[in-house]
Amino acid sequence: MSNEPSFNEIDILKLFRSNKANSSFLNGIGDDAAVIKIKNQKLAVSCDSQINNVHFKLEFSTIRQIAFRAVSVALSDLAAMGANPLFFTNSLHIPKGFSKKEISLVKKGFIKAEEEFNVQLIGGNVASSKVFAIDVTVIGSLNNYISRGSYKDEKIYVSGNIGSANAGLNLLKMKKLDKELVQKYRAPIPRVELAKILSSKGFLSSMIDITDGLAIDLERLVKFKRKSLGAQIIWSRIPKSLNLEKYFSKKKIFEMVLFGGDDYELLFTVKKDKQRYFENYVKNNNLNVFEIGTTNATGDIFIYKNGKNIKIKNGGYVHKF
Amino acid sequence: MSNEPSFNEIDILKLFRSNKANSSFLNGIGDDAAVIKIKNQKLAVSCDSQINNVHFKLEFSTIRQIAFRAVSVALSDLAAMGANPLFFTNSLHIPKGFSKKEISLVKKGFIKAEEEFNVQLIGGNVASSKVFAIDVTVIGSLNNYISRGSYKDEKIYVSGNIGSANAGLNLLKMKKLDKELVQKYRAPIPRVELAKILSSKGFLSSMIDITDGLAIDLERLVKFKRKSLGAQIIWSRIPKSLNLEKYFSKKKIFEMVLFGGDDYELLFTVKKDKQRYFENYVKNNNLNVFEIGTTNATGDIFIYKNGKNIKIKNGGYVHKF
Repeated sequence: MSNEPSFNEIDILKLFRSNKANSSFLNGIGDDAAVIKIKNQKLAVSCDSQINNVHFKLEFSTIRQIAFRAVSVALSDLAAMGANPLFFTNSLHIPKGFSKKEISLVKKGFIKAEEEFNVQLIGGNVASSKVFAIDVTVIGSLNNYISRGSYKDEKIYVSGNIGSANAGLNLLKMKKLDKELVQKYRAPIPRVELAKILSSKGFLSSMIDITDGLAIDLERLVKFKRKSLGAQIIWSRIPKSLNLEKYFSKKKIFEMVLFGGDDYELLFTVKKDKQRYFENYVKNNNLNVFEIGTTNATGDIFIYKNGKNIKIKNGGYVHKF
Repeated sequence: MSNEPSFNEIDILKLFRSNKANSSFLNGIGDDAAVIKIKNQKLAVSCDSQINNVHFKLEFSTIRQIAFRAVSVALSDLAAMGANPLFFTNSLHIPKGFSKKEISLVKKGFIKAEEEFNVQLIGGNVASSKVFAIDVTVIGSLNNYISRGSYKDEKIYVSGNIGSANAGLNLLKMKKLDKELVQKYRAPIPRVELAKILSSKGFLSSMIDITDGLAIDLERLVKFKRKSLGAQIIWSRIPKSLNLEKYFSKKKIFEMVLFGGDDYELLFTVKKDKQRYFENYVKNNNLNVFEIGTTNATGDIFIYKNGKNIKIKNGGYVHKF
């Protein structure tokens, strides 16, 4: 939110990405979650930080909401792998001024997440710091995991409205309240169940969750294994809340939808030979998925809007340092 | 190091300790590491925070040492369970001023830990923060796990010198350098291999690692399951570096050994019916363990020194908020 650029998260992740896949660490660093194998059991593990004035502001959410969201956001990474979330741990950084009541609100947020997502807090660590932060690590079991990295000419889908969470955040900054949009920012719902169904059926060639923005996460999705891949998405097909138009200009809506982030919706591609089966299954089971475009071999991300193909540069929200 | 008391870590842990053991979470919150069961595989999971000016100071250690120590300290919790460490993740909080080179030193510290302890970094998360911090979560496999909670009339052991790490920290504050003592503070070695051997042989009734001080961790060890338990340890039997006397008064040495913390040595009790077998095994295999006292049913912790039994109040270093 408020960081001066110096170098960005991608550079740092590259630095840490030297750890390659092997017989016990199946997917290498850089995917949504690590896939490990212990004896014959596959597990997905992911960690996520929520830091005050970086990932949240205490003026925009209650502590309970922030704690709940810390778990949601971490679980969304497991959803993106098709994992079955089971447990989480937390490292809590508490500033001096915090009261016991404020800390108990963290616990209440965790309890809500436990109930809502059927996961269990198994341990944690509390430490004093100048900055309030919650680091959550989630662990799930895996049967058929879905990595990033699409093939060409595959259809691209999202699991729900895009841009709403960023709109909610912008409304909070403007001191306005729209229940639907603000809720989407404050309490995103990781699409765990949908992801489990889609991956168990063998439909998907790749999947990611939208954290930093549709544009940048689409690029991460399609180019993960093959740099030559690209995609075209159709503006009119991207599901968007009708409420966006109540508060924002067309230009702002375009930016929020493509570059906003924080949606935690799934973004995935379907295997070509499963396309028909997938479409039937989705219709028969009334699943919330929306086709928004197609992968291609252009090496670039395009958005088709008002009869024009717009090339998107490395966009979206990348944490700057 | 520098926190004003408001309420302490124990209070907060109690708040989070409502999660009880069940069929998939075997030991409940409060032990050194969580023991979980996924299908038939038991795992130990633990997380630990290293926060600038709380757990370390950049003037006392290099960034590489701090990163290495972050992994060591987390692994020590797995050692205390008798686990076999396999993987770790990290959440990195990086302040604005950090250079790429400084971040690469974090990576170098992790690589050293990977090599030294045969564990693998499987993923992480980087975020900007005002405070430099490293949160590490470690995962290991478990066969026979050792919980806290001794029985009475069992012998108490430690795995190495106590008080050295705190002495090393104090020397750094005094701008003095003693290689042995400072090294013990900067680069503690988690006693993973020793713990694996001792637990696999079925010798132990309970185990913990010494993080906050011998006195407080002894109390946590013996009273974990039975509040009525107590212990007597013998001052002269506690292994201590001869170098302590070069720099510190007798009073200060007493404080550092009992209340200093940061040693990451194992503290454990041996089952009465395995005592003889244990003693023979230790002798034949030349293992570094030191008998320092006996558990009892007094409900209190005593130290025997110069012909006197001194009762120790809730001592040691508990993180204050």
